[in-house]
Amino acid sequence: MSEVLDLTRALIEQRSVTPDDAGCQALIRTRLERAGFECEQLPFGEVDNLWAVHGSDGPTLVLLGHTDVVPPGPREAWASDPFVPEIRDGVLYGRGAADMKGSVAAFVVALERFVAAHPEHRGRVALLLTSDEEGDAIDGVRKVAEVFRARGERLDWCITGEPSSTAELGDLLRVGRRGTLSATLTVRGIQGHVAYPDKARNPIHQALPALAELAARRWDEGYESFPPTSLQISNVHAGTGANNVIPGELQVLFNLRFNPNWQAAQLEAECETVLRRHGLEYAVHWHRGGEPFYTPEGPLRAAARDVLARFAGRPPEESTGGGTSDARFIAPLGAQCVEIGPVNASIHKVDEHVSVADLEALPDVYLAMMERLLTD
Amino acid sequence: MSEVLDLTRALIEQRSVTPDDAGCQALIRTRLERAGFECEQLPFGEVDNLWAVHGSDGPTLVLLGHTDVVPPGPREAWASDPFVPEIRDGVLYGRGAADMKGSVAAFVVALERFVAAHPEHRGRVALLLTSDEEGDAIDGVRKVAEVFRARGERLDWCITGEPSSTAELGDLLRVGRRGTLSATLTVRGIQGHVAYPDKARNPIHQALPALAELAARRWDEGYESFPPTSLQISNVHAGTGANNVIPGELQVLFNLRFNPNWQAAQLEAECETVLRRHGLEYAVHWHRGGEPFYTPEGPLRAAARDVLARFAGRPPEESTGGGTSDARFIAPLGAQCVEIGPVNASIHKVDEHVSVADLEALPDVYLAMMERLLTD
Ligand SMILES: [Zn+2]
Ligand SMILES: [Zn+2]
Repeated sequence: MSEVLDLTRALIEQRSVTPDDAGCQALIRTRLERAGFECEQLPFGEVDNLWAVHGSDGPTLVLLGHTDVVPPGPREAWASDPFVPEIRDGVLYGRGAADMKGSVAAFVVALERFVAAHPEHRGRVALLLTSDEEGDAIDGVRKVAEVFRARGERLDWCITGEPSSTAELGDLLRVGRRGTLSATLTVRGIQGHVAYPDKARNPIHQALPALAELAARRWDEGYESFPPTSLQISNVHAGTGANNVIPGELQVLFNLRFNPNWQAAQLEAECETVLRRHGLEYAVHWHRGGEPFYTPEGPLRAAARDVLARFAGRPPEESTGGGTSDARFIAPLGAQCVEIGPVNASIHKVDEHVSVADLEALPDVYLAMMERLLTD
Repeated sequence: MSEVLDLTRALIEQRSVTPDDAGCQALIRTRLERAGFECEQLPFGEVDNLWAVHGSDGPTLVLLGHTDVVPPGPREAWASDPFVPEIRDGVLYGRGAADMKGSVAAFVVALERFVAAHPEHRGRVALLLTSDEEGDAIDGVRKVAEVFRARGERLDWCITGEPSSTAELGDLLRVGRRGTLSATLTVRGIQGHVAYPDKARNPIHQALPALAELAARRWDEGYESFPPTSLQISNVHAGTGANNVIPGELQVLFNLRFNPNWQAAQLEAECETVLRRHGLEYAVHWHRGGEPFYTPEGPLRAAARDVLARFAGRPPEESTGGGTSDARFIAPLGAQCVEIGPVNASIHKVDEHVSVADLEALPDVYLAMMERLLTD
């Protein structure tokens, strides 16, 4: 068995359902310390975070990953135990195989090889792992980034191991992510009986035109390769089931995914302008999930394009689509960020898997990135 | 103590929380049989219904009432036990005192006096009682009306004892009620992740313009003394709490209170036209709570106006406002209907009460109506 396959299997065997690291980071720390890395635990609440660095001053390349996985759901739904890695027909099955224990194992193997081959490499190469990417993402990289900001940690480039490939390894290079902003909106009316609408104020009726306007708005036409900013109402709740009572309150949750045309604060102001213009009596709680980030042309993006093109046989699609990742917390520190990882078709589903051939190629991809950025 | 007060107290002592009659009708049946009425029980499910008639062929006047009461809520909230009638300062307290055990007692006393004074009265005088007016109203007068329709029961005039007075006894004569129509609407979309709105179809976004149109529509300008038809959305529910999921379905409840400009079937068609025009994929379940009824000028309305004017010192306001009553099931049989009862300020509340003076006047009001309609 290959080294990366071996380590991926060892990690899958740890039941690290978010936010439980379940010993994954200790295992990795032991290996990287043996390879000469300086390691630091940065725990917050229930969350484990590991920071491992090799090298001294100079440009810093961070490999960013997570050891936690989403819950597997019922065992019966899987063809084999989600925490017992199994290879069938050249494919490794198990929770986290693709998201992202395979990438994490490839990071570790690549780092070991890199510092063995280039003990005097330029700048610093580092690994940052959290056990809270799939969960609340409060005590993970968000908190670590605050520590880094406080102590002036230098970060130049960041490669996240999220499964970015769509059909085959290296077909897509993620060079940005949209920002995310969530609202919890309460519209207040006056409760009453449906037979006496004049004595009540129906918060549903009052909110409908404002919500329709927000839902219909075209926020922008996109930004470089970003899709247009989008607002989605995910929850509406009013009434207790009785059809003769005008409810006193309407609860609405909505979420915005936005490109670099916007900052969260501007979107909040735009939305509240609509709510006020429609005369709503409302309260809104905003949660800023992360500002958008974008890595324009430069050394990191160029290196990633060349390396992926070499492995995949053609240049990758360079994309800014998809959900959020922990890169949203690292990018504001001034780092350029890309995401490079295996095929994402099975992530968060039953029978999650990764091709063994892709897994075995991954350490070479990451190693090539390090050599390109940190050796002459 | 007066006869009507005595009987009202006896009825309040029966804990007839809807749909339990708790022996009220048996007590009344015994008295009316003694007075020469032919009595018939028409039970459906858990519900007791009593039909008592005096007289032979000819115009029929029905007194319509219910023996059930709404639940009293916590005992501590009441100044005295809701099922132990108590008089304080000339006011009788107890659950059902105003809605409508006082009226039912007054019906009985008035009927006894009427047939004693006019054993050979014109036509028929009758009492119809149910124990399911405050509850589902499925197995009560709705079912009895089906029986009546099937056997061709003749009904000309109906006086419901619902507490119609607002400030003092006889200040309001109810000559109609709006219809009520309920909808349970499901709008179907395609569930997805908020980050990929193109792969989903948000049923909230789709429904908003249609719902806004329905909520904003002015259905009519009223009908005679009826208020305008009104649609109220009472419940909206979509989403499971997560703010990153576009829900697959939206549930909406709405209710229409409508005047005689409309029949339920027309309103259903109008609403569905709007839903279809907005391209919604939907399913709707309609519940017809009752068509509107209206008693125009005629012998019943004129008699009621004159009788109330005599008691109150001035003519009553003639109104069609308020919620629904069981008259909605009797009116379609061809009967003219009015509602005459005590002051309704305390109904369905704690410390429900009726003025003893009003209670003692009520049998005379009903007796005067009988004499006007069924004697020469
Ligand atoms: Zn992941
Ligand atoms: Zn009632």
